[in-house]
Amino acid sequence: MFARRIDRLTSSLVRDLLALTQHPDMISFAGGLPADAALFRPDLQPLSAADVWQYGPSEGEPGLRELVARRAGAFGLACTPEQVLILNGSQQGIDLVAKLLVDEGVPVLVEAPAYLAALQAFRLFGARTLPVPVDATGGVDFAALQDGLQRARLAYLTPTFQNPSGYCYSETERERVAAGIDDAATVLFEDDPYRDLCYDGTAPAPIAGRLRRAHWVYQGSFSKTLAPGLRLGYLIAHPALMAPLVRLKQAADLHSNRLSQHLVSQVLRDGTLERHVAGVLPLYRERRDAMHAALTRHLAGRAHWRCPVGGLFFWITLPAGTDTMALMHRALAQNVAVMPGDAFFDEAGATPCLRLNFSHADPTRIELGVARLAALLP
Amino acid sequence: MFARRIDRLTSSLVRDLLALTQHPDMISFAGGLPADAALFRPDLQPLSAADVWQYGPSEGEPGLRELVARRAGAFGLACTPEQVLILNGSQQGIDLVAKLLVDEGVPVLVEAPAYLAALQAFRLFGARTLPVPVDATGGVDFAALQDGLQRARLAYLTPTFQNPSGYCYSETERERVAAGIDDAATVLFEDDPYRDLCYDGTAPAPIAGRLRRAHWVYQGSFSKTLAPGLRLGYLIAHPALMAPLVRLKQAADLHSNRLSQHLVSQVLRDGTLERHVAGVLPLYRERRDAMHAALTRHLAGRAHWRCPVGGLFFWITLPAGTDTMALMHRALAQNVAVMPGDAFFDEAGATPCLRLNFSHADPTRIELGVARLAALLP
Repeated sequence: MFARRIDRLTSSLVRDLLALTQHPDMISFAGGLPADAALFRPDLQPLSAADVWQYGPSEGEPGLRELVARRAGAFGLACTPEQVLILNGSQQGIDLVAKLLVDEGVPVLVEAPAYLAALQAFRLFGARTLPVPVDATGGVDFAALQDGLQRARLAYLTPTFQNPSGYCYSETERERVAAGIDDAATVLFEDDPYRDLCYDGTAPAPIAGRLRRAHWVYQGSFSKTLAPGLRLGYLIAHPALMAPLVRLKQAADLHSNRLSQHLVSQVLRDGTLERHVAGVLPLYRERRDAMHAALTRHLAGRAHWRCPVGGLFFWITLPAGTDTMALMHRALAQNVAVMPGDAFFDEAGATPCLRLNFSHADPTRIELGVARLAALLP
Repeated sequence: MFARRIDRLTSSLVRDLLALTQHPDMISFAGGLPADAALFRPDLQPLSAADVWQYGPSEGEPGLRELVARRAGAFGLACTPEQVLILNGSQQGIDLVAKLLVDEGVPVLVEAPAYLAALQAFRLFGARTLPVPVDATGGVDFAALQDGLQRARLAYLTPTFQNPSGYCYSETERERVAAGIDDAATVLFEDDPYRDLCYDGTAPAPIAGRLRRAHWVYQGSFSKTLAPGLRLGYLIAHPALMAPLVRLKQAADLHSNRLSQHLVSQVLRDGTLERHVAGVLPLYRERRDAMHAALTRHLAGRAHWRCPVGGLFFWITLPAGTDTMALMHRALAQNVAVMPGDAFFDEAGATPCLRLNFSHADPTRIELGVARLAALLP
C-alpha cells in the first residue's frame, strides 16, 4: 500500500537515541549537539518590529541571501545572491538535491564513512551508493574516487571536518578531487556544516569554488555555529541548477521560517556571528583536548584515533571483532551514549568504529564517560 | 542529467506572482495572503527564556502536540498527542504524504478544481490524478467520486472552504464520502487550513473523524489564523501511518522550527488563538461582503459566483470562451492581480474561472479592483 521507497526508509539511530540521551544522568557522546553554553540566544527585540509574519519568497529573504553570498566569497566560494537558497536547516538541502538528481538505481558517490542522514535520504530516493574510503590515516582513496566518478551522477562529499571521521581534505586533495569531478562532469554536492569550527588554523577553501566546468551544490548551516533550534541553513548552487531547486523548495514547504531568517540576518550583518564563533572555539578546543587526553589515558594501545582539527567528533577504531552495537548497549547501561560506526557505512563488514562527540559534555564528564567506556573494552 | 521527476516539476503561478503583487500600487486578489492587520504579532519575551535553541524531537514539541490533539478533539477529530506531527507549514504535509504513498503512475483522487500546490507536489512524485468535480452549485459529483475511489490509492480532499472554489461539504456529503472511503479502503488525505475562518455559523466536523476502517491523514495550519511567516502546521494521522511519516520528516529536515513551535504553544495554551480569530472574523466578513457587493454591482449577469461561507476566496465563472490568462495580463497592466482558474485543474478545457482573494485588500481597494476587472470583461 505504501510507495516503494518506504521499503528503503530507515530510521536514524542518532535521532532514535536523542530522547534517551537527554536524560540528565546520561553522558552523551552520541549526538552532534552543540554545548548548551555555546547556543546563541539572539536579541529578540528587533523581531517585534520586523516584517516577518506574512508569506515570504521561496528563495529566502533578499538581505540574508546577500549576506550569505558575501560570507561565502570571503571563505573562497565566489557567488551571487541569486545563487543562494535559504533552507529550513541543511538536512533539507539533501532532500532537495536528492529530488533533483536521484531516480531509483542512480549511482551516487559517497564517502565511507559518510553522514548518516544523507545516506538515509539518498537511499529513500533509490540511489545506488558508490562508497569511496576516506580516513584520517590514508586520506581520500583516489583509485576508488576516480572509478566512482566515471559512474556516478552525483558525488556527495563533506571535505571539511567530516562527520563522522573528522577528516579534512588537504589543499592538494581538494585540487585533485575538483579536477576529477570536472573531467567526469559529475555533479558535486559539498556539505560543509563544520567549516567555522576549526580549532587549529583555518579550513581550506571549498572544492565547489575550484571547479571550472562541473555543476555543483554547496551547503552550509547555522546549527553548529548559532543554534540548531533555528533550523536555518542555505545552499549555493551553480546557476544552471537554481531554477529547479527553487521550485522543489516551493513544493516542499513554500519558504523558510522568516523569524529565523531575520534573526540570522541581524547576526550576520552586525558581525555577531564571528564574535560568537570566536567565543565558542576555546570552549570546544578545551573539550576536544580533554577527550584526546582521556582517550590517551584510558585507551592508548587498545584503540586508534586522530585528534581532529575541527568539527565535533572523534572517530575511534577498535580491535577487529568488537561488536559495536553490543558495546553501545552496555555503555548505555552505564549512562554513556556512543554511536556505533556501522551506521555510517552503506555496506556491512566495516572495521569496528565508534563516533564520539566532544562538544556536548563538559571536560569532567568527558573524563568520566571515557573511563566507563574503556572499562567495557577488552 | 536530472531525475525524471524534474520533467514534471512545474512552478506555482501563485508564487511566481507573489513578488509582482507586493508592489504597493497593485490591488492583489491573486494570492491567499492574510490581511496585514490580521497578522498575529506574538509576545516574544517568553521566548528569550525558553529552551528552543538546541535540537528538538522530529515529531514536534510534546506540549504543542498535546494542545493540537486537544483542539482537534474539540472540533470533532478525536486523537492522541502521539498521532500529531508538527510541520514547517502544511505544504510540508503534502510532500510527506506524497513520499509515503505516491510512486510513478499511482492514481490519486483530487477535486476539480484543487489546491494548486498539492497538484504540483503529487505530479512531482508521478501521480496520475483522478479529478472529481466539486463546485458550489452542484456540490460533490458522487458518481465520479465512487468511480475514482475504486482506483485511487490516495484521495486528497479539502472539504472545508475549499481553495479555490470556497465550497464546504455538507454534513450529508461528509457522511457519504466517509462511507465511500471506508468501503474502498483508499487513504484519505484531508487538508483543512481554512476551518477557523468561518463567517456564518460553524464548520462541520472533519471527514477523517467519521472513518471507521480506512487509513487517513488530516492536516491543519496556523498560517491563516496567526501568521504565514511562522511556517507552522501539523498533521494528525491514523496510528498505522505515524512511524513512516515521522521518519520521512526526519529525512526531510530533522524537525520543525522551535521558535515558532514555542510561540504557537503559548498562543494555544492561553486561549490567544481563539481571541485572535474572533477579532479577525469581522474584518474578513466585511471584506467578503464588500467583494460580493462589488461583484454584484459590476458583474451581475456577466459572471457567476456564490458568496463563500468561509475561507479566503471567491470563485468566479466567466462566459465560455473567455481567455483567463490574457485577462490576467490585462488586469496586471491595470494594477489588479487575479488568478486564472486553469491552474487549479489538472486537465485542459475547463470552464473559464477566476479565483479572487478577498482577505488581503481593504474594502475600498476591493471595490476599485473589481470595477477595473469588470471593465476588461465583455
